[in-house]
Amino acid sequence: MVLRQGDDVLSNIEELAEKEKIPSANFTGMGFVNAKFGFFNFETKEYEPKEFSKVELASMNGTIAWQKGKVSIHAHGVVTDKTFAAFGGHLLSATVDTGSLEILITIHDKKLERTLEDPPGANVLQLGAN
Amino acid sequence: MVLRQGDDVLSNIEELAEKEKIPSANFTGMGFVNAKFGFFNFETKEYEPKEFSKVELASMNGTIAWQKGKVSIHAHGVVTDKTFAAFGGHLLSATVDTGSLEILITIHDKKLERTLEDPPGANVLQLGAN
Amino acid sequence: MVLRQGDDVLSNIEELAEKEKIPSANFTGMGFVNAKFGFFNFETKEYEPKEFSKVELASMNGTIAWQKGKVSIHAHGVVTDKTFAAFGGHLLSATVDTGSLEILITIHDKKLERTLEDPPGANVLQLGAN
Repeated sequence: MVLRQGDDVLSNIEELAEKEKIPSANFTGMGFVNAKFGFFNFETKEYEPKEFSKVELASMNGTIAWQKGKVSIHAHGVVTDKTFAAFGGHLLSATVDTGSLEILITIHDKKLERTLEDPPGANVLQLGAN
Repeated sequence: MVLRQGDDVLSNIEELAEKEKIPSANFTGMGFVNAKFGFFNFETKEYEPKEFSKVELASMNGTIAWQKGKVSIHAHGVVTDKTFAAFGGHLLSATVDTGSLEILITIHDKKLERTLEDPPGANVLQLGAN
Repeated sequence: MVLRQGDDVLSNIEELAEKEKIPSANFTGMGFVNAKFGFFNFETKEYEPKEFSKVELASMNGTIAWQKGKVSIHAHGVVTDKTFAAFGGHLLSATVDTGSLEILITIHDKKLERTLEDPPGANVLQLGAN
């Protein structure tokens, strides 16, 4: 999948997964983006966010699964700015900036679900017979 | 493979490779971990280690091969802390912290071995007819 | 593909793609390198470069496609130094330093081309029926 300026990254992956009924998948990506990362606070159970604008997406790794009938995407990424310093973590959202974003999606046959496990209070990918 | 809090990352991959007799493989992963990285000192031939606690594993890339009858894992990773700053390198060990770790293992048919090459004094993956 | 000290990373991937007539591919890699990254300046249309010597390549993600009959490689990477600090972005060039570089190339059947799109003034991967 190749996205262009202004495209929302996670929404586009989500829509493709819905449309193509992707059972589960892994994906990688790289491009030029505005990205919002979140660091999970296990006390408040919320992500503390920070935005990075006009940065290279040096790496992105994610998984596509399902939760209660809806597509559930989990993605981590690393971005780098014009000083080449690197930042990253859990990707909350991203849009493509000037340039493009190349995404490789590796689709698996088996449908995977996430369910909330508490502890640790996080949605965890379930593999069935692991 | 999905690991949970307290699991040792490299040991679990190693055990799976032993049990399933994986000839060779590449893997990627992401999750929330405590990680120890090492920077190889070619004078002392030892890794100088540093630990990072309660960090997002923003990316992990590794290979599974064999050396003298034992599973040989080589993994690199990037972790990010709550300021979203990124650190990483050669992964010596990691355990899952609060949350989980999702790992994708891509298995290859061909058995691959590592052997010590000196120079540079490092174990190098051998591909046969390269 | 396993490269050794002194090998030029992108040239070796390019030569393999030419020789094997790889229609398109994604690749990942990790190793110990000297790397030059560039941050694209959309005003001058040039990459502003910076070199990092004797660093771990913590991650590398790239794509192989074709442009006007020649192999076109696009790669992003993250490197880490002996303090484990991470840097990266768009990879302009890299050579292997002491040690080796392990590269996994996932080849696709479909030939992909890049063409210059302006705006944004960048070469963009074309997927045909996207």
